[in-house]
Amino acid sequence: MANEQTADRIRFLRLLRQVRNFEPRPVPQEAIDDILEVGRWTGTASNSQKLEVVVVRDRQKLEALSGMGFTYTPPGAPAPVNTAGHIAGAQAAVVIITEGKAEQIEMEAFDEGRLVERIMLAANAHGIGSGIAWLSIEGGRAACRLLGVPEGRRIKTVLSMGYTDAEALRARPKRGRKPLEEFAHIETY
Amino acid sequence: MANEQTADRIRFLRLLRQVRNFEPRPVPQEAIDDILEVGRWTGTASNSQKLEVVVVRDRQKLEALSGMGFTYTPPGAPAPVNTAGHIAGAQAAVVIITEGKAEQIEMEAFDEGRLVERIMLAANAHGIGSGIAWLSIEGGRAACRLLGVPEGRRIKTVLSMGYTDAEALRARPKRGRKPLEEFAHIETY
Repeated sequence: MANEQTADRIRFLRLLRQVRNFEPRPVPQEAIDDILEVGRWTGTASNSQKLEVVVVRDRQKLEALSGMGFTYTPPGAPAPVNTAGHIAGAQAAVVIITEGKAEQIEMEAFDEGRLVERIMLAANAHGIGSGIAWLSIEGGRAACRLLGVPEGRRIKTVLSMGYTDAEALRARPKRGRKPLEEFAHIETY
Repeated sequence: MANEQTADRIRFLRLLRQVRNFEPRPVPQEAIDDILEVGRWTGTASNSQKLEVVVVRDRQKLEALSGMGFTYTPPGAPAPVNTAGHIAGAQAAVVIITEGKAEQIEMEAFDEGRLVERIMLAANAHGIGSGIAWLSIEGGRAACRLLGVPEGRRIKTVLSMGYTDAEALRARPKRGRKPLEEFAHIETY
């Protein structure tokens, strides 16, 4: 039976949004601590625990990371989009480090997706917005050098964080989802 | 500042566990509805919304899926483990269907990881346990045929679900996590 706590948790899960515009005020250490603790306990395939993170708050490093993004032109867009540009305006970034083993790239990506989702939710529990940034292949290598990550490891995904700039979020077009019957099928496709 | 709601949500995120033993009582439709709605709203790369799911409750299908698992022998284990075996005892399974395009396999796996995490949390919000099952390559093809999924799509991940068999969970060895300082680094690796 759905009680109030269940309803609150479902709403919490349902309403997570990507945030790419942040207020300039810093995020408190206790929120970062909670986020890292949730991240640490996120499950990994066969409990391999191979993912690690670097938390970056240094302004120069955040700006450097924002220039290492994967860039592409979405269909219909007037100009290319740098998917990491929003790191420059963030108060913190959580940089995800994978083992970078070619033969397990799919499993690493799956575990990374799990970790990203959990970290975004933990930030949101503290009222903090977060957005996914992708680094280019070359950018990922540059990020490893910037952060002193041992050679061979890989950086692809960075989460930028900060208090949500609510006005910018409201101004952004709301992207819906396809109807339930196109997402979920019952018993057969 | 952490208030009660924040603390509840962090605990909720922090304490999610894989469940592979289930009670025989069925899961209510309203829980399935919430789980699918949360799944539908889970973000995907560039909002591609390419993932779909099939919800299976038919006992024969659950048993068939449990036989399509990826099987391996963990280090030190006495015998091979069928990672999908637990589907046989589940009350429901959420089967994830990806586009199956080789050139985007990493992105699909990342999105799949995000979806899995969100669905497991939504189930947990209803007091329902869930566990990740992997199908073998051949098993994934057989699952497509079983569920009428168009050729070319891919099934790799299945979530089994049901009310947690608490006794079995308690009896299972608790697997810890590495210490925080080995998971998270500050400013540099």
